[in-house]
Amino acid sequence: MVAEIISVGTELLLGQIVDTNAAYLSEALAELGVDVFHRITVGDNFERVTAALRSAKARADVLITIGGLGPTQDDLTKEAVAEVFDEELALDEPSLRFIEELFARRGRRMTANNRKQALIYAGGRPIPNPHGTAPGALLEKDGKLALSLPGPPREFRPMVDGFVIPYLAERASGRRMILQHRVLRVVGIGESAIETRIADLVAGVNPTLCTLAHTGECHLRITAKAPSPEEAAALIAPLEAEVRRRLGEAVYGADAMDLPRTVVAMLRKRGRQLAVAESCTGGGLGALITSAPGAHYVFLGGVISYQNAVKARQLGVDRALLSEYGPVSAPVARAMARGVRERFGADFGVSITGMAGRGEPG
Amino acid sequence: MVAEIISVGTELLLGQIVDTNAAYLSEALAELGVDVFHRITVGDNFERVTAALRSAKARADVLITIGGLGPTQDDLTKEAVAEVFDEELALDEPSLRFIEELFARRGRRMTANNRKQALIYAGGRPIPNPHGTAPGALLEKDGKLALSLPGPPREFRPMVDGFVIPYLAERASGRRMILQHRVLRVVGIGESAIETRIADLVAGVNPTLCTLAHTGECHLRITAKAPSPEEAAALIAPLEAEVRRRLGEAVYGADAMDLPRTVVAMLRKRGRQLAVAESCTGGGLGALITSAPGAHYVFLGGVISYQNAVKARQLGVDRALLSEYGPVSAPVARAMARGVRERFGADFGVSITGMAGRGEPG
Repeated sequence: MVAEIISVGTELLLGQIVDTNAAYLSEALAELGVDVFHRITVGDNFERVTAALRSAKARADVLITIGGLGPTQDDLTKEAVAEVFDEELALDEPSLRFIEELFARRGRRMTANNRKQALIYAGGRPIPNPHGTAPGALLEKDGKLALSLPGPPREFRPMVDGFVIPYLAERASGRRMILQHRVLRVVGIGESAIETRIADLVAGVNPTLCTLAHTGECHLRITAKAPSPEEAAALIAPLEAEVRRRLGEAVYGADAMDLPRTVVAMLRKRGRQLAVAESCTGGGLGALITSAPGAHYVFLGGVISYQNAVKARQLGVDRALLSEYGPVSAPVARAMARGVRERFGADFGVSITGMAGRGEPG
Repeated sequence: MVAEIISVGTELLLGQIVDTNAAYLSEALAELGVDVFHRITVGDNFERVTAALRSAKARADVLITIGGLGPTQDDLTKEAVAEVFDEELALDEPSLRFIEELFARRGRRMTANNRKQALIYAGGRPIPNPHGTAPGALLEKDGKLALSLPGPPREFRPMVDGFVIPYLAERASGRRMILQHRVLRVVGIGESAIETRIADLVAGVNPTLCTLAHTGECHLRITAKAPSPEEAAALIAPLEAEVRRRLGEAVYGADAMDLPRTVVAMLRKRGRQLAVAESCTGGGLGALITSAPGAHYVFLGGVISYQNAVKARQLGVDRALLSEYGPVSAPVARAMARGVRERFGADFGVSITGMAGRGEPG
């Protein structure tokens, strides 16, 4: 199955926004095994949108448009698809009711042009959009499939995951399929070292495994294609177990459980409390920990001891230690951690001292 | 003048990378007044790249390709341009020497396939790339201009700013032109309120003025088109003065002088020192301040008083005050700021207390 993506929006051609939607959709299609050989970006211009659709229709089985479903005159994607497929647009009553209710719920007045968003291909069907006023639209005609998706990412992404991918999978294989991800989070071992340990596993087809480097950690993403979440999970489980066996404790968490959440959850489970003493990070560690829900159960606070005088006075670090070893040293780091633990009455004290990265002390 | 952008790279169609280059170039072309009506993305496939170039050549005056200039078999953009323009590729000796020297300087061995990067259109010229081994290439033929630019953003962006824009400006108007930006940074007043005050100024053509909302602040970007940096600056100055007159002290800085840098510079100038007391931000304010160069001259450190006990013990906040007004109150905020200023011996104490944003105290 070959798909083609047509991104519609003058703001894209003016460089006012970056087309992250196209990358998101491309990645999902690649994982599903759908080929994409062309992506076209055109402005809000009827002739150029129809021309792009015509070339796409000549080359691909599936035409996916992004954007141009809004209420204004500029929004003309459905009109262009209708033109290219010689199709009528008709008011879809359920879509109209949904839009009306959405306006009522938000306490806003619905203007007449919003009815335009409920126009759907007469021989097609709407694609529900729980996150906005513009439903998507689907048309199957001339042996081709046209999918019209909304542009705002928070409306677009759920429609890709919840409708487009399962629908295309069912069309391709006769079975409805979903893509399910599992992200294993790894610290303390670099991407290339990880890759040498799991190289043979990366060659798999379903599930797939790929490594993604992030600041301070590496993510291993397992993706399974299956008819149901349960079957996808059953495909993921043995691969996840094997990865965990090979990498051991370096896999500290999965999915949304980032390092701050994992630390906070572990401390909560054990009923322990934490305080921090930070020098070069200037409060960044504390900010990271408090980004996790429930931080107030386990995090007491800390001291930002950017200057040596603060290390001495607020943390009780011995001035002799500071002058003998310097502030960026293991003995001072230990004294900072001990100092904050004792003064704050914490179970654990964590300290950071180092160079601020511009050759400046801190 | 009409330009068309062809982004080349299978990794783009697989969604492995987001095409930020295309947006960057689009914005610069828009500011120059060059129209872009189509953008095409194709993979590393000779037939599809040539087909994309042929349609672009039929529609536009200027064909700009991004990517596919590397040393591997996959990199075939120049080969495709040569095919479409019936042009030969020839080894460019200065480019080859530059690549050889770059490898020598980096202490790496140059493999034979890197010579491929020094192949330039026989009737064209290379575009120097000080940031990488792949020079750009330029060909003017059949009344069209083809520009081949490298894909890595840190090579691509300087080539757009330093060569493509001035070159196209000269071609369009007979005069070499550059684009110069000035970003005014505004705090304490929202984007829509700013827009009402400067609405008439936004209508300008050269220089242009646009507002960009950011977290916690708003940027006003002035862009001038002129033959030289001096002439651009002369265009910018009166508009900047007028914006500053209308917005007053809300314009706290310009260009790279963000809020932390501005605060650090002001304190340094006055020889004053700062300490912070943070509750809900958990250290984020300190981390922000220490992101500015020279922070160690003016920033002593602070206390992260996430829990009330820490506010009382480490900052001397009266427990009666805490129970009477609650930790999220002006009297407690004042006591925190006073406490950290006195205990740290600072000239200024700044405090933050509030809800952590999840209905959790902090």
